[in-house]
Amino acid sequence: MERHFHHELKELKEDLLKMGGLVETAIHNAVSGLVSRDNHLAERTIKEDEKINAREILIEKKCLELLALQQPMAGDLRFIVSALQITKDLERMGDQAVNIAERALILNQEPPVKPFIDLPKMATLVESMVKDSLDAFVNRDVKKARKVCEGDDQVDNYNEKIFHELLSIMIKDQTTVSRAVYLILIGRSLERIADHATNIAEDVIYMVEGRVIKHHAEEKGESTL
Amino acid sequence: MERHFHHELKELKEDLLKMGGLVETAIHNAVSGLVSRDNHLAERTIKEDEKINAREILIEKKCLELLALQQPMAGDLRFIVSALQITKDLERMGDQAVNIAERALILNQEPPVKPFIDLPKMATLVESMVKDSLDAFVNRDVKKARKVCEGDDQVDNYNEKIFHELLSIMIKDQTTVSRAVYLILIGRSLERIADHATNIAEDVIYMVEGRVIKHHAEEKGESTL
Repeated sequence: MERHFHHELKELKEDLLKMGGLVETAIHNAVSGLVSRDNHLAERTIKEDEKINAREILIEKKCLELLALQQPMAGDLRFIVSALQITKDLERMGDQAVNIAERALILNQEPPVKPFIDLPKMATLVESMVKDSLDAFVNRDVKKARKVCEGDDQVDNYNEKIFHELLSIMIKDQTTVSRAVYLILIGRSLERIADHATNIAEDVIYMVEGRVIKHHAEEKGESTL
Repeated sequence: MERHFHHELKELKEDLLKMGGLVETAIHNAVSGLVSRDNHLAERTIKEDEKINAREILIEKKCLELLALQQPMAGDLRFIVSALQITKDLERMGDQAVNIAERALILNQEPPVKPFIDLPKMATLVESMVKDSLDAFVNRDVKKARKVCEGDDQVDNYNEKIFHELLSIMIKDQTTVSRAVYLILIGRSLERIADHATNIAEDVIYMVEGRVIKHHAEEKGESTL
């Protein structure tokens, strides 16, 4: 029984990593679909979201079964409850990637507002935060989790920079308004994904240290955009 | 032991209702602070967010203790796991209310873009969704939960209407750009709050019927704004 349980926990970790991989790809394809004006990539993100949703349902089911059948104590309980939260965060990241992809399909029909400079950098940072937050989870790596939390401030800075730059462009040239607003919303979606990665990192710190840091972190650096 | 457990479940319900009440007030004050240009109301939402955060931590702690000490089966397990998800949704609604309040403080320093018509209606609908989702939860009321899910489509319609109206205003008068963008982001925050209320309603249906409807609902009516 004990051995079986540890096998199931290992499987749960692998499921979460696979789901994380799907989410990273979804973000990457959505942003690449925008930056390289490639509708196929954006459409792939929209189409593959089903797989992410299916995985959430599967992982949630496994977690509930583990809670009900194994009645785990202390550390394992914390791990399974964290897994339940993390799969929700991953699913919502997938939704945000779909939002980005849908806006990319609209924007790709129009001339570009300006060359992309900060947005791809921001996206690369966000993707690495998603990956690192899951690595931190499966390896119980608090140091890596703290690095993810720090990344969140950088993402907020990128988002504010992009926001103000697009505002100036709209004010100067009103023909750019609707495209610029879509780009602002894409920045905001990336920022939301970073928030979810930060939630995961905070769950890791909680799981390992049993300490709740989330609201402290939020007070410190929350963006108003 | 059994009786004690049921007392604790009842207390957990009351805690969630109280947290929901704080969140409703936070949304109401943030939107009223904007519509009636009353900075005190907006500031109250920002200040009171601490209480919402504290309640999330308390409820999460109680849920974990119930899971660890009582090792509940089937129905009770589902209830406690749902409570864990719901407190997270409520906390994020509180964050969105703070976002609205912060933008209201900025907008209140400038002349209004236009009279508020749809935004207060949208806010009233969103507040009732928050209330109904929690009532549905504590009373295991699937019918009310389904009504909340339906409300989400109406909120998306309001949001799209507000979005397109503000886009036209910006295009006609570029001096409105930054204010209109802030208003678009406020509409988006309300729409996110409605999504969280819908998550809660979906959790209720899952808890009562053991059926996962969430991704089905999302596919049906997700807004791209």
